[in-house]
Amino acid sequence: MVRKADVIIVGGGVIGSSIAYYMSARGMKVILLERDRLGSQASNAAAGMLAVQAEITEAGPMYDMARASRALFPQLAMDLKELTGIDIGLKRKGMLRVAATEADVGEVQRILDFQKKEGERAEWLSAKQVRQQEPGISSEIQGAMFVEEDSHVDAPELCYAYAKAAAALGAQINEFTEVKSLLYTQGRITGVVTGEEELFADQVVVASGTWSGPLLAQAGLTCPIYPVKGECFSVLSHSQLIQSTIFSDGCYLVPKKGGRIVVGATMIEHSYDRRVTIGGISKLLEAAKRILPDIVDAEWEQAWCGLRPQTMDGLPYLGEHPKLKGLYVATGHYRKGILLSPITGKLVADWAEDKSEQVLSLASFRVDRHQNDPSEEEVMSL
Amino acid sequence: MVRKADVIIVGGGVIGSSIAYYMSARGMKVILLERDRLGSQASNAAAGMLAVQAEITEAGPMYDMARASRALFPQLAMDLKELTGIDIGLKRKGMLRVAATEADVGEVQRILDFQKKEGERAEWLSAKQVRQQEPGISSEIQGAMFVEEDSHVDAPELCYAYAKAAAALGAQINEFTEVKSLLYTQGRITGVVTGEEELFADQVVVASGTWSGPLLAQAGLTCPIYPVKGECFSVLSHSQLIQSTIFSDGCYLVPKKGGRIVVGATMIEHSYDRRVTIGGISKLLEAAKRILPDIVDAEWEQAWCGLRPQTMDGLPYLGEHPKLKGLYVATGHYRKGILLSPITGKLVADWAEDKSEQVLSLASFRVDRHQNDPSEEEVMSL
Amino acid sequence: MVRKADVIIVGGGVIGSSIAYYMSARGMKVILLERDRLGSQASNAAAGMLAVQAEITEAGPMYDMARASRALFPQLAMDLKELTGIDIGLKRKGMLRVAATEADVGEVQRILDFQKKEGERAEWLSAKQVRQQEPGISSEIQGAMFVEEDSHVDAPELCYAYAKAAAALGAQINEFTEVKSLLYTQGRITGVVTGEEELFADQVVVASGTWSGPLLAQAGLTCPIYPVKGECFSVLSHSQLIQSTIFSDGCYLVPKKGGRIVVGATMIEHSYDRRVTIGGISKLLEAAKRILPDIVDAEWEQAWCGLRPQTMDGLPYLGEHPKLKGLYVATGHYRKGILLSPITGKLVADWAEDKSEQVLSLASFRVDRHQNDPSEEEVMSL
Amino acid sequence: MVRKADVIIVGGGVIGSSIAYYMSARGMKVILLERDRLGSQASNAAAGMLAVQAEITEAGPMYDMARASRALFPQLAMDLKELTGIDIGLKRKGMLRVAATEADVGEVQRILDFQKKEGERAEWLSAKQVRQQEPGISSEIQGAMFVEEDSHVDAPELCYAYAKAAAALGAQINEFTEVKSLLYTQGRITGVVTGEEELFADQVVVASGTWSGPLLAQAGLTCPIYPVKGECFSVLSHSQLIQSTIFSDGCYLVPKKGGRIVVGATMIEHSYDRRVTIGGISKLLEAAKRILPDIVDAEWEQAWCGLRPQTMDGLPYLGEHPKLKGLYVATGHYRKGILLSPITGKLVADWAEDKSEQVLSLASFRVDRHQNDPSEEEVMSL
Repeated sequence: MVRKADVIIVGGGVIGSSIAYYMSARGMKVILLERDRLGSQASNAAAGMLAVQAEITEAGPMYDMARASRALFPQLAMDLKELTGIDIGLKRKGMLRVAATEADVGEVQRILDFQKKEGERAEWLSAKQVRQQEPGISSEIQGAMFVEEDSHVDAPELCYAYAKAAAALGAQINEFTEVKSLLYTQGRITGVVTGEEELFADQVVVASGTWSGPLLAQAGLTCPIYPVKGECFSVLSHSQLIQSTIFSDGCYLVPKKGGRIVVGATMIEHSYDRRVTIGGISKLLEAAKRILPDIVDAEWEQAWCGLRPQTMDGLPYLGEHPKLKGLYVATGHYRKGILLSPITGKLVADWAEDKSEQVLSLASFRVDRHQNDPSEEEVMSL
Repeated sequence: MVRKADVIIVGGGVIGSSIAYYMSARGMKVILLERDRLGSQASNAAAGMLAVQAEITEAGPMYDMARASRALFPQLAMDLKELTGIDIGLKRKGMLRVAATEADVGEVQRILDFQKKEGERAEWLSAKQVRQQEPGISSEIQGAMFVEEDSHVDAPELCYAYAKAAAALGAQINEFTEVKSLLYTQGRITGVVTGEEELFADQVVVASGTWSGPLLAQAGLTCPIYPVKGECFSVLSHSQLIQSTIFSDGCYLVPKKGGRIVVGATMIEHSYDRRVTIGGISKLLEAAKRILPDIVDAEWEQAWCGLRPQTMDGLPYLGEHPKLKGLYVATGHYRKGILLSPITGKLVADWAEDKSEQVLSLASFRVDRHQNDPSEEEVMSL
Repeated sequence: MVRKADVIIVGGGVIGSSIAYYMSARGMKVILLERDRLGSQASNAAAGMLAVQAEITEAGPMYDMARASRALFPQLAMDLKELTGIDIGLKRKGMLRVAATEADVGEVQRILDFQKKEGERAEWLSAKQVRQQEPGISSEIQGAMFVEEDSHVDAPELCYAYAKAAAALGAQINEFTEVKSLLYTQGRITGVVTGEEELFADQVVVASGTWSGPLLAQAGLTCPIYPVKGECFSVLSHSQLIQSTIFSDGCYLVPKKGGRIVVGATMIEHSYDRRVTIGGISKLLEAAKRILPDIVDAEWEQAWCGLRPQTMDGLPYLGEHPKLKGLYVATGHYRKGILLSPITGKLVADWAEDKSEQVLSLASFRVDRHQNDPSEEEVMSL
Repeated sequence: MVRKADVIIVGGGVIGSSIAYYMSARGMKVILLERDRLGSQASNAAAGMLAVQAEITEAGPMYDMARASRALFPQLAMDLKELTGIDIGLKRKGMLRVAATEADVGEVQRILDFQKKEGERAEWLSAKQVRQQEPGISSEIQGAMFVEEDSHVDAPELCYAYAKAAAALGAQINEFTEVKSLLYTQGRITGVVTGEEELFADQVVVASGTWSGPLLAQAGLTCPIYPVKGECFSVLSHSQLIQSTIFSDGCYLVPKKGGRIVVGATMIEHSYDRRVTIGGISKLLEAAKRILPDIVDAEWEQAWCGLRPQTMDGLPYLGEHPKLKGLYVATGHYRKGILLSPITGKLVADWAEDKSEQVLSLASFRVDRHQNDPSEEEVMSL
């Protein structure tokens, strides 16, 4: 076991694993620390939508970042397959954001106008056109926005592939390793303390999702992150019930390989409870039946849930600690962790290499945006 | 591996395993053959209700047999625990057959009158009394019949315990062994042919549930048996949501150990398809929520299904082949296999010992009741 | 549910599923019948080696067929991914057939000479060269034959992808459907009888592996097939312990995606018993440790087993019934079912289309090679 | 959700759950907090031996406590069954501590002498007597100590039953709830802070096993606890291969219900890594085969591991905080958590009720035995 590296990454979810991959790819010596198993929290629970259009409905840095990140996936999928043999299941069959009622039509069309204005290929389909394209969809649907470029991946495979690709490039992966505290001296990070030992590096990245808060607090940073529990289930059928992702107010349906569909997701704020409830499943089932009546004949596969790391303003924390050189933060990606994982990995690798040119404006994601400016003494006295 | 025994039992479900146990307990040398794993079909899928009162609503030989069998469970539970260490989870906390609507009240009260006439302890509870006894039950319920003696067991444990008790008493258990045909000569059974070898015994018992037909047909017996698929799911909670079994038209809820509840069951006739469908789960979920609204907070555990072996007149086939001495049939128990397993095991053991005195009238269960009398030549020429 | 098709395929393993795919791809209407789940027997249990060189050590029709089939995989992998989204994990990193002792060296070199003579790219590596290429291999190894073109796939994914691709092309897949008998009239097949109904087609393919015998016997064909049980286990590690497949006398190690290694396989003839034994695991563990000492640090994943369908002469049965037009047989592929699945699917599709030109000599695989010529009357009188 | 109770217990393993049960049984209002699932760490991984004689080979407070605790099990088993329906699988079939070599004979006989001196029923069996009693044991065994009163339970069932019994008696169980810090004022504990809220109680019990250290450190207590990883596997057979527990230097074999045997356990100090390794399984397999050669025919079930909480002197920490009234510690039970769980639960309930009479001498278990006496100020200033 190596105890000294160029960079130590805290958190083996999709964000931490992506960072480990991009840094290893640039020749840095990486140690990736995960307190449980790789991807065992939010990352493996995700449906894997790269849903720039479904969830981001206003212009701004998040929208720009999402588009930039989505564009990285085709090459990424090939690179990860080459390095690890793992297929991340990238599928670009578009997304239908359906209007279930007359009242929804206006809202969906507003989003459509925004997408078009931003230069995305998106179009309105009438109820009849929707059913021509997806014959299984309920005749109750009033119409839909169709976004041709929308795509999705297998979230557990993506997280696993990042980590395994990092390992193939020389990274050391330590599962079941909890970081207790940070080591630093004279305004520079120097390493971390785990349950068993001290590990040293010039750079440390905190990417622990919902569990990032306490570690950052030790460094004087107030980055409030809270969990939003999401329950999902999946069904199987021999033939494909739908071709595109179907997105509505009550649920979304993501068609995976081999006739599988993932149905998600409930949103329960501030719950660390990872039990799937009868109420949650029941709500999703009813919503899915309303949109896709034929789903009743599909086979039940399984149910699961995950905790997405949410922030007060809905934006992730991305950046270097203002006072502790070498300590980077990349967390709070909420429901966009899968989508934003490549751009996040790339950005952190850029910072570590001190690359100055940055196309994206990152001011909105500053790690110290939620705090009363701590004096340097405060940080140092921790 | 022994190839000669006193008796060969074909089918390692709860009926075949019970017979193996009772025969072994009387000193007979038993070989139990199961084509897959013990209990892998209907037996492990059952909710384990010993529901004399819920399902049998008319006097007759089935009712008598059910009551006689239920009475065997307390001693049986102790004997199986002693021999195998397995607790079959016998729990006698009564059963509430609820009337969900005004219209149901009449039907439930008719069943209640029948139970009382037959000397069972059963009583009518008003809506208020129902909720005093089970505070979680919906205020929509109009009343209920309460049967104090109703009990239930853990079905998978029961089947397993029978087989393991038989093994402890010397029986040989061969899983993954399919019987291809019967061996007989001069009007006597002499053994069976499996996929790999011939096995010999003076007595053969066919107890293969839904799969019994073809083997019996080889012996000239027409015993039509068809599958009725049943889907179930289970939930977990730390505290007990209900004390008694709740039985309604749409579903039943059986409270198991440790706060677990089994919710069952759909009825899909003539389906061998063992996939659990979204439609099935959805129906049960809605029915369970109507009766026990608090179930929405319980945790989802799992879903499964089983194929119950049904006959044309709803009665099992129990008895000796009319022309082939030593060939016994014990199958077609439909939803009452768990309940009737002890009496069935005892009866078959009695026959094998030629015990003449029989308290129960078995004429209704004759194995040749569904056929044009085959001549002896027909049987022999097979 | 459709009850009339161009072809009915009996058996949803890798062979039946491949046939379903190739026939569907040519526009035939296919019904695929499987008594349990797709691939639930030998197919999902395989390690997925496309091991022309490891197991076939003599020239002949089997060797020719194996090479022809292996050549189909690269295009097949792309086609299945396109149709189903499923990646079959085709990986071409070569195979090392190691000589563990001085005594083995001669035998391995004999095989090497044969391979070279047949035009395969194969070379001898000294002990030192072996460890340069695969540093984890034990220093006890004396040398190895390296076959650069050797490749492997994920067997469960392959079977699943064939079936799902067939479904995407219009095939109907019926799981949990057991075929009881064949229907024919005047020397032509007309359909099959399942547990629940009659299904009709002009062509029927029997591809039921170990379970094919009884159905073929009904048609007067003696095609003895017996099971050879094989146990396997798998391990996980973050970094790749080996790059190529390692093949020795005691076991083989196949490096799968994400650092997984499959270790196989025991060979227990005439056993239908699907339980994994302590003895089997123990033998494989010891053999794997001898070849790859570092495997002790890898993580235990799981153990499983499958039943491979073997024939008396080690060759599959491939061809049309000599008397019953339209009844095809494709079974008995033993340990080569994965490798031979594409060529088998293609051949059967050719026959069904009456394509006369056949590059391969199939006389050795005739379905009636093991029987006294049955008269047409015998077949018809069944 | 209740936020105020008489006592808050931190840790839902077998120790915390036992305390929750005994306190609830005395009418206290209990909140049990577990950061993951009940029993998900060491408790569910244990083989369940109540092995007073196997592991404790010297007189002292640990020996006295172990005997006192073992004596509580028969009544406890009945009480838990009554309250929850859960059978904890208490089985008293004795234990054979075998001497595998001549050299071992002396050591085993020394332990035997000690046991006899302390008044335990224990006897020496010659090699021949061992095989008369357990015919499956290897003929290599030189003899054994037989302890008739030795017994065992199903460890996962025990932990679950404690918690469910507590819930049945009114306790509130919060899984997925991590305690971040303690609340106290003026030398008295007042509650805890979880990831989401503050919870209040007059008494707090820390029973978090390997994870207790940081929380206790917050209260100024130095209670070093480190994990000792233990790997196990289990096998199945239809008939019982052994009747008694077999204990040797290399492994132990514990016969569970239904023909199951648990084989344990490796000992890897200071490892938080919960992966089961090939090396660990391999060692246990070899040791088990040496003692019980027939185990090769048994069926592989599964492998798992757990982290046992060990202390510097091998004794648990049991007692009240010297300066913070109402803060109790009960942790560090290492391999004896199952055995000591009832006496621990009873003791903590006694303390909470201020029962002065204590039969056992607890000085050896003092919570402050490993520290330089902290001044009250130090504690308060945290």
